[in-house]
Amino acid sequence: MSITSDSPAPILQRLDQQGITTLTMNAPERFNALSEAMLQALKDALADIADDSSVRCVVLAAEGKAFCAGHDLKQMRANPDKAYYQTLFARCGEVMQAIVNLPVPVIAKVQGIATAAGCQLVASCDLAVAARSARFAVSGINVGLFCSTPAVALSRNVARKRAMEMLLTGEFISAEQAAEWGLINRVAEDDTLDEATRELTASICAKSAVAVRTGKAMFARQLTMPLDEAYAFAGETMACNMLAEDVSEGIDAFITKRSPQWRHR
Amino acid sequence: MSITSDSPAPILQRLDQQGITTLTMNAPERFNALSEAMLQALKDALADIADDSSVRCVVLAAEGKAFCAGHDLKQMRANPDKAYYQTLFARCGEVMQAIVNLPVPVIAKVQGIATAAGCQLVASCDLAVAARSARFAVSGINVGLFCSTPAVALSRNVARKRAMEMLLTGEFISAEQAAEWGLINRVAEDDTLDEATRELTASICAKSAVAVRTGKAMFARQLTMPLDEAYAFAGETMACNMLAEDVSEGIDAFITKRSPQWRHR
Amino acid sequence: MSITSDSPAPILQRLDQQGITTLTMNAPERFNALSEAMLQALKDALADIADDSSVRCVVLAAEGKAFCAGHDLKQMRANPDKAYYQTLFARCGEVMQAIVNLPVPVIAKVQGIATAAGCQLVASCDLAVAARSARFAVSGINVGLFCSTPAVALSRNVARKRAMEMLLTGEFISAEQAAEWGLINRVAEDDTLDEATRELTASICAKSAVAVRTGKAMFARQLTMPLDEAYAFAGETMACNMLAEDVSEGIDAFITKRSPQWRHR
Repeated sequence: MSITSDSPAPILQRLDQQGITTLTMNAPERFNALSEAMLQALKDALADIADDSSVRCVVLAAEGKAFCAGHDLKQMRANPDKAYYQTLFARCGEVMQAIVNLPVPVIAKVQGIATAAGCQLVASCDLAVAARSARFAVSGINVGLFCSTPAVALSRNVARKRAMEMLLTGEFISAEQAAEWGLINRVAEDDTLDEATRELTASICAKSAVAVRTGKAMFARQLTMPLDEAYAFAGETMACNMLAEDVSEGIDAFITKRSPQWRHR
Repeated sequence: MSITSDSPAPILQRLDQQGITTLTMNAPERFNALSEAMLQALKDALADIADDSSVRCVVLAAEGKAFCAGHDLKQMRANPDKAYYQTLFARCGEVMQAIVNLPVPVIAKVQGIATAAGCQLVASCDLAVAARSARFAVSGINVGLFCSTPAVALSRNVARKRAMEMLLTGEFISAEQAAEWGLINRVAEDDTLDEATRELTASICAKSAVAVRTGKAMFARQLTMPLDEAYAFAGETMACNMLAEDVSEGIDAFITKRSPQWRHR
Repeated sequence: MSITSDSPAPILQRLDQQGITTLTMNAPERFNALSEAMLQALKDALADIADDSSVRCVVLAAEGKAFCAGHDLKQMRANPDKAYYQTLFARCGEVMQAIVNLPVPVIAKVQGIATAAGCQLVASCDLAVAARSARFAVSGINVGLFCSTPAVALSRNVARKRAMEMLLTGEFISAEQAAEWGLINRVAEDDTLDEATRELTASICAKSAVAVRTGKAMFARQLTMPLDEAYAFAGETMACNMLAEDVSEGIDAFITKRSPQWRHR
C-alpha cells in the first residue's frame, strides 16, 4: 500500500506546538459526528497524550461549520441492536471520562453548533471558549432519544432547572447564555476565537507543569468527597506539591519580584 | 349524600387537557397554605398521576393572589406536639419527593408569593415559570422557625451563599433574581404567564412520551452518583431508549427532514 | 513580665458588641497572611466562640489594605519539610472547617485582595460582603503551587469551569464578578462596606437565636446527603425547632401582626 499525497486526512488531527496539543475533529461534512471512528480516534489520542509528559494542555477543536453534532444518527440507525448501543454509549462515556481524567487541562474551542454528545464534549472539558455565534443544545429529545449521557456532564456544569429545560425542550442556547450559566468560560468574537483560546493556553503554559498537573489530578476527585475527606486529600496533595523544586523557585521569584524559571515547564 | 351545584370546590383541582394535567391549589383565602388537607390532596393527586400513562406533563398552579405561603401556621400552632410536627414534615417531604420522583415533568406556574414550603414546591419542580411580580422567600426564620426542609430543595437549586442569605434573612427575592440564580427558568409578564407556561408544555408535548419519561426518571437519580457510575447508568438508559420505536421514527424523520409521528405521544 | 500600654496588638482582635463578634485579622503589613500564629489565633477564637452562647453571629474582618493574601510564603519557604507542610495545611483545613461547623453564621467582610487561602476563607464563610474595589484570586499557581485546599472551598461555591479557570490562570476577578458567580453575596461601595455588613448582622440579630443556630447546624450537613436522607434529617430538625418557645411567640406575633419578643435572642 502506497501513501500518496492525496491520502485521506485523518478523522482526528493532532498538532503539537510548544506544549500545546491541538486535537481537531475533522469530519466537517458530517458535522464532526461522534461516529465509531471518531470516538476511537479520540480515545486513542487521549491515551497517547496521557503518557506524553511534553504536553502542557490540550485544545479540542473542530474543522468546519460545526463543532460537533453528537452521535452519528445514520450509523446508529443502521445498527438496531441493543448490544451495539450499549457498546457505543460505553465507548462515548470512556472518551468523556478520559478528558476528565487526563493529566493535563483540556480546553474546548467551539464554533457553530455543539449538540447532544457534542455539547457533552464541551461540558466535559476543563475550560471552554466559544465564538459568539456558537450555539449549544442537547437535542436528542427531538428525535425521541433523551440525551441521558450528555445530561451527566451538563448537569455537573449548570444549575439543574437549566439543564432540565435544555434536555426537555431540545432548544438552543447562545454562547452568551452558555457563559452566563457556566457551561463555557469565555465568549469571543467569531474572528478572535483562536486568539481567545491562545490567551488561555498561554496562561497555562506560563505556569509550572507540575502545579498544573497537580491541579488537574486533584480537582475533579475532591468535588464529590465529603468536606473533611476533601481537605485531607487536598492538604496531602498540596504538601507534595510544595516539595517540587518549582515551588522554591516560584516563591523566591515572587519575593524578589522577578519572573520564575520553571524546571517543570 | 347528594351532590349539589353549590358543593364546595375541592382544595386541589385537577384538569386534564391533551396530556397536560394542571393541578391548581385552591385555598386562595389562606394563600394556598400547605395544610394537612392540601398536602393530602397533593399526595393523592401525584399518586394518581404516577399511574396514569395518559399524562405527558403536569402544571402546578395556584388560585388567587399567592402561589403558596407554606405551611398553615394556625394549624401548626393549634397542635403543639412533637409527634404531630414529625408527621406533618414527613408528609410534606413525601409530597416534595413525589414531585421529584413523578414519571413526568412538573412545571411550577407562579404568581404572587411563594414562601417557605411554597418556595420549596417551586424548587422541587423540574421547571418553573413566574410572573414578573412574583416573589420568593424562605421566611420561616421570621417566626423563629428555620426553613430546614425548604433548605433541602432550595440548596439543590441555587448557590449555597445565596440559599443561606435567603434562609437567614427571610427576605424576598424578585422573579428576575430567582431566574438569574437558577431557582426558576423563565419570567413572564403578569398577563402572559399562562402563555409562557403553555409554551413549555407545548414543547414537552411535541416530544416522544417515552423519551420524556426516560429523562425524568434518569435525571435526578444520576445527579448524586459518582461520574463513572452515572455514565454506566446513563449509557444503559440510553441504550434502552434507543430500542423504542419512537427513536427509529425520530431519526428517520430527522434524516428525511419531516416531522416525526410519535407512537408514544 | 509587665504588660505596658505599648504591648503589641494581638494578631487577631476580638470585639463583642450586642451579640455580634468581630474577629479582625491584624497583620496588615503582611497582608494578614495565614501564618502559623494567625491560624492558631483563628482556631482558638473559633473554639471560644463555639462555646459562647452569647454570640449571635461572627464577622470576619481584616485590618489594612488587604483582606488576606493566603499562606505566609516566607515562613513556608523557611521550613522546607514535608511534615511541616502537612501540619500547616491540616491546621488550615481545621480552621476552614471550624468556620463551616461553627454554631453561628460567619460573614466575611472583604476589602482589598483575598487571594489563595484568603479567598478560601471567604468561600468558607456562610455569607460574604465585599467592597467594590475588592478582588479575588487563587493565585498559588503563579508560584508553582496549585491552590488545592482553596479549591475545596471555591469549588463548593462557584460553577466548576469558573473555579478551574481561576485555579489554572491565577487571575483576579472583581467583586462584581464574584457576586455574579455566587462567591460573595453583596458588593458595597468602598465607603459603605461597614454599613452593608451591619445590614446583614442586624437582620440576623433580629431573628430568634435558636432558629439561626438550628439553620447553621443543619445547612451544610444536609447538602451532601441523598434527597430522602436530607428530608428525614431536615424534618426531624424542624420538628425540634417547632418546640422552641420562640416559635409559639413568633407565630402568635405574626398572626396578630406585632413584633415578636424572642426568648432566645
